[in-house]
Amino acid sequence: MSLPGPVDPPARLLMGPGPITAYPRVLQAMSAQLVGQYDPAMTGWMNEVMDLYRGVFETSNRQTLLVDSTARGAIEAALVSLLEPGDRVLVPVMGRFGHLLVEIARRCVAEVHTVDAEWGTVVEVDRIAEAMERVRPKVLATVHGDTSTTMLQPYEGLAELCARYDCLLYADVTASIGGNPFPTDVWGVDAATAGLQKCLGGPSGSAPATFSDRAVAVIESRHSIEAGIRVDGDPVAAHPIRSNYFDLAMIFDYWSPRRLNHHTEATTMLYAARECARLVLEEGLPAYQARHALHGRAMAAGVAGLGLDVYGDPAHKMANIVGVVIPDGIDGEAVRGILLADFGIEIGTSFGPLAGRVWRIGTMGYNARTDAVLATLAALETVLRRLGHPVPAGGGVDAAYDIYGEAA
Amino acid sequence: MSLPGPVDPPARLLMGPGPITAYPRVLQAMSAQLVGQYDPAMTGWMNEVMDLYRGVFETSNRQTLLVDSTARGAIEAALVSLLEPGDRVLVPVMGRFGHLLVEIARRCVAEVHTVDAEWGTVVEVDRIAEAMERVRPKVLATVHGDTSTTMLQPYEGLAELCARYDCLLYADVTASIGGNPFPTDVWGVDAATAGLQKCLGGPSGSAPATFSDRAVAVIESRHSIEAGIRVDGDPVAAHPIRSNYFDLAMIFDYWSPRRLNHHTEATTMLYAARECARLVLEEGLPAYQARHALHGRAMAAGVAGLGLDVYGDPAHKMANIVGVVIPDGIDGEAVRGILLADFGIEIGTSFGPLAGRVWRIGTMGYNARTDAVLATLAALETVLRRLGHPVPAGGGVDAAYDIYGEAA
Repeated sequence: MSLPGPVDPPARLLMGPGPITAYPRVLQAMSAQLVGQYDPAMTGWMNEVMDLYRGVFETSNRQTLLVDSTARGAIEAALVSLLEPGDRVLVPVMGRFGHLLVEIARRCVAEVHTVDAEWGTVVEVDRIAEAMERVRPKVLATVHGDTSTTMLQPYEGLAELCARYDCLLYADVTASIGGNPFPTDVWGVDAATAGLQKCLGGPSGSAPATFSDRAVAVIESRHSIEAGIRVDGDPVAAHPIRSNYFDLAMIFDYWSPRRLNHHTEATTMLYAARECARLVLEEGLPAYQARHALHGRAMAAGVAGLGLDVYGDPAHKMANIVGVVIPDGIDGEAVRGILLADFGIEIGTSFGPLAGRVWRIGTMGYNARTDAVLATLAALETVLRRLGHPVPAGGGVDAAYDIYGEAA
Repeated sequence: MSLPGPVDPPARLLMGPGPITAYPRVLQAMSAQLVGQYDPAMTGWMNEVMDLYRGVFETSNRQTLLVDSTARGAIEAALVSLLEPGDRVLVPVMGRFGHLLVEIARRCVAEVHTVDAEWGTVVEVDRIAEAMERVRPKVLATVHGDTSTTMLQPYEGLAELCARYDCLLYADVTASIGGNPFPTDVWGVDAATAGLQKCLGGPSGSAPATFSDRAVAVIESRHSIEAGIRVDGDPVAAHPIRSNYFDLAMIFDYWSPRRLNHHTEATTMLYAARECARLVLEEGLPAYQARHALHGRAMAAGVAGLGLDVYGDPAHKMANIVGVVIPDGIDGEAVRGILLADFGIEIGTSFGPLAGRVWRIGTMGYNARTDAVLATLAALETVLRRLGHPVPAGGGVDAAYDIYGEAA
């Protein structure tokens, strides 16, 4: 075979649902040389990463660390480590990622119950309360921000419900963390898992996660140290966690002072995760979230200013992504294709019932910026006009400028 | 909290069992900017990666791709996708990583049988044949190179045995691929999984893997497309693979022209994996393996030249790692500590019965180099002498030079 050349990415402005354009500082961090997995430098960085992500998750949880997989793997790590076969789990489903929790919980052979909401709305707490009373789940498994619909699930009252029914509260915050408030401890969340490729502005492939002492107690009750490294007195569970790679009890050991070998930590991805958290905390979490709120508002206003409808319940929209109803007579994929080929701008499509009906435009991390918002709105206007769809000249950009003017 | 500074790794020469110092070109590739997961550039690179790793694995297997986890995760992906609860699996165990296959297969609720060899030896094919006749396993799960003992399992006769008993042959080649011959198709291996952080000279966090048509047929028979993206006519299995993240049938879909969304591909790790394979194939696989053989021989000769014993059966030693019996009266951890602190050189310890008894010195990937070998031998000599252990002056370096002289 003739070998392909070195990787040489085309210029892209990634304004979809993620991955988005990474912060240049994160890319630089990933070109740093490796050290050994038990090097004092490495274990020092692991401890720093734990502390940095306590800041990002607003938690004092000791067990705050990275799972070496994409965000989806960390969801599985949380659910497979918390749920034993036959355990009941309740999943509020308002989009594709609620379905994903159902799928993953079923593979844990849990007894899965759902409370379903129409796509574009959120699941009302009253309906969750009614289902909790009926199901008595061990885990309430929620999606904080479901990018498939751009909806943000409210958490008011969920911790109280979980306390009443002695239930653990899990949250998938992959798409929301950093761009929307998620105070883990204040909201009484027992387990939360994330990814780098949305508001944190890094690549997919490392998944920050945090676990409360209550969650850790459940996980540790299933602790089983594997043969080959086990010594006398180490635990061997009769019914160990059904995954070795996602066995959080062993991952906790690896991140503990004992540093018991499990996987080999993905050093470069740890460098990325560390730099993402440094960027968030350097700006300050409230300012970081406020920046996402501002540029998300500007993008939504710009979309409306082009005469397009913003998808979903505006009272519960994620700050970092806008769903755009594709106008009648417009081929959504053709628009995306021209934006990418001629303007280097990527926006997203959606899944399932929304495929071909809704575009998704993200303003996340590095791309939660005025120039990224204005360039995207100007390009979208141009492409729609060339395809024959009537749009007010400058309507998108003007509406976004108005938002920035108010904020200035 | 006060924020830690940017990542700034200390100078290290990583001569342990891995991770080892990454190729500078791999580090550079990882600082390339991201593109979207369905960008034509990205899907083009995915296809190139499949083709590049067909070269590395010496296979024509269509399903040759990356699992987005460390090497351990890809072992789990292979076993959990091939093994259903109650299936029989036979594992030859000659070290810690054989035990790991047992552990992972048990979590798949497989019926696990082993053929055990003393650490420092390999499992004779006759003993595997006897166990195959008795157990009739669905999968024969092997470790090619077990770094815990530095032993390389022979494969002669295994494909014939597997054909006779209609069994699938799995191989964990994490520690061996690139540094030792592993012709997947010639040896009749049905599934093999690897990692980047050994002879391929990259970071941990991406796992190249390959699957024969026979293995794919078993995996596809359990194919189940998840809710949220499933359309009419898509398969829904009664007993799906027990992991969502490691469901290879869904991962195959993601890497197929249909590009059905599963995880979000870890773009930066794909850049790394792609550059690792380019480096191997640019040098040429035979030359790449020969380089590992040369520097491994030089390191082993140097160790002997220092009056130290090389651990394990020399007839079955991996090319890329040398086990060194720690001399009586020497504190192995003290030696490693001084090498790291004063010389910036990392060598490894070992696990279980070999902890504190054996050092492991790797010559892999970027560090399969004359200067890395000579610097390590000179430093080891110096440290041993300062700790009061008698060593012939220049004995290690001279013996290594002799090997290089023969080869020149």
